[in-house]
Amino acid sequence: MSPAEVRRRIARGEITTPTADLCPGYVQANLVVLPKEAAFEFLLFCLRNPRPCPLLEVTEPGDPYTRVVAEGADLRTELPRYRVWQHGKVVAEPTDVTSWWTDDMVAFLLGCSFTFDGVLMQAGIGVRHVEMGRNVPMYRTKVEAAPAGRFRGPLVVSMRPVPRELVPKVVELSGRYPMAHGAPVHVGEPQAIGIRDINRPDYGEAVELRPGEEPVFWACGVTPQAAIEAAGLELAITHAPGHMFITDLKAEELDRKAFLSQVCMQLQHKEEVNEQG
Amino acid sequence: MSPAEVRRRIARGEITTPTADLCPGYVQANLVVLPKEAAFEFLLFCLRNPRPCPLLEVTEPGDPYTRVVAEGADLRTELPRYRVWQHGKVVAEPTDVTSWWTDDMVAFLLGCSFTFDGVLMQAGIGVRHVEMGRNVPMYRTKVEAAPAGRFRGPLVVSMRPVPRELVPKVVELSGRYPMAHGAPVHVGEPQAIGIRDINRPDYGEAVELRPGEEPVFWACGVTPQAAIEAAGLELAITHAPGHMFITDLKAEELDRKAFLSQVCMQLQHKEEVNEQG
Repeated sequence: MSPAEVRRRIARGEITTPTADLCPGYVQANLVVLPKEAAFEFLLFCLRNPRPCPLLEVTEPGDPYTRVVAEGADLRTELPRYRVWQHGKVVAEPTDVTSWWTDDMVAFLLGCSFTFDGVLMQAGIGVRHVEMGRNVPMYRTKVEAAPAGRFRGPLVVSMRPVPRELVPKVVELSGRYPMAHGAPVHVGEPQAIGIRDINRPDYGEAVELRPGEEPVFWACGVTPQAAIEAAGLELAITHAPGHMFITDLKAEELDRKAFLSQVCMQLQHKEEVNEQG
Repeated sequence: MSPAEVRRRIARGEITTPTADLCPGYVQANLVVLPKEAAFEFLLFCLRNPRPCPLLEVTEPGDPYTRVVAEGADLRTELPRYRVWQHGKVVAEPTDVTSWWTDDMVAFLLGCSFTFDGVLMQAGIGVRHVEMGRNVPMYRTKVEAAPAGRFRGPLVVSMRPVPRELVPKVVELSGRYPMAHGAPVHVGEPQAIGIRDINRPDYGEAVELRPGEEPVFWACGVTPQAAIEAAGLELAITHAPGHMFITDLKAEELDRKAFLSQVCMQLQHKEEVNEQG
């Protein structure tokens, strides 16, 4: 099934599960939706924390439709599950946020590590949470994100167990996708980054760690959710951890350059051509 | 003289001229100062127009001091000349904007092509506006910048005459500094980008174009000033064209990666170390 077809099934409520095993080879994205008055601070938060928050698209205030990562997808219905935040607390986890959306909402789409799970599997490297049919385990760390305005909090990481001899290969492969968090931020010893119990993730589900495997940690797009807690905004909407927006972009379309910039240069170029034509 | 010493002389009112020939080898920057309510739209404008608007630093609302491109420089006094904008019109061109600064002002510092003028001269390539002791000529083009909210308008370019046989070398050398606008956006034929008379620049001063030379055009950090006209904000402050902020950074410290991201990663790393120490 194409991403568009999967998103249609999601919008009809037929898929409400985590998305790690859906549409391998396509870029997946974290969602953060905020009132415009908080958008500048959050955009700065992203620019100051590019590892957890690689910017793929920012929508115009009030506009719920994507135009860069997918043509005209409805961000209010085409994710399998959302979190609605009021004053820093989750007040609902609906599968549709149409009734919460207001005219001054700005949506941010940020790269997601699920993007390279398919790449790892194609290279013959098993991805444990996909193999076990679970959501990826995610942890709050003792590393502080760079603050911006009201947004501050811990770096959140996702974890994949990797056989020790494959760690360099996994670092290299994921490192090719900086707009999907890129190379790991930490390998081994969970305590070193403040994770007390690897079997009790703060988000998602625990997965088995086998002898000879290292836990490998990547910066995670749930980091903004920890910052939204701290910011205590009147209203915010995010995806539910692991329940991502599946884009129309192939993983290989994300390269080392800043993605937002590239796309905008392309849009700009199109506009120039239109103007001259 | 070091950049800090030059900035001190500027703050004392001893230097009020364009800065192209000051502190060769150091990064110079364009300044845009806006009320916080317009900061999100302008930050998006920069991200959508990375060639004219490469982001070097964004300050906290109300804070007039730099911390990334120079330690504690006062943006209200350490540029040789400013423009104060009200409702899209220039209402003053003072050498000090302390009396205009408000508690919710956000300052944006954007890379400037003066940064590579020194590099060209070190490579034995003459830079005409420096040789003639003039401000660089700048032009509004028919190329539209990608709009963001109220910010829209033409791409503004600076021009340097280059002997035809040196064009590839100049493209290559300036292309090493994307955070200072990078490679040219156009070579030759001014009409192709909507410039009617090369001898009548829209900003700065005309320079001599000699037989065997091509006019070479770079994206320019005055582009936001054209967008500020269109936005018609109640109040905005910019540098006067050619009268830049001279940073403490050496040109070779700007490489191909996104600068803001790099610096923030470094700041973040420092904070991590402090926290653990």
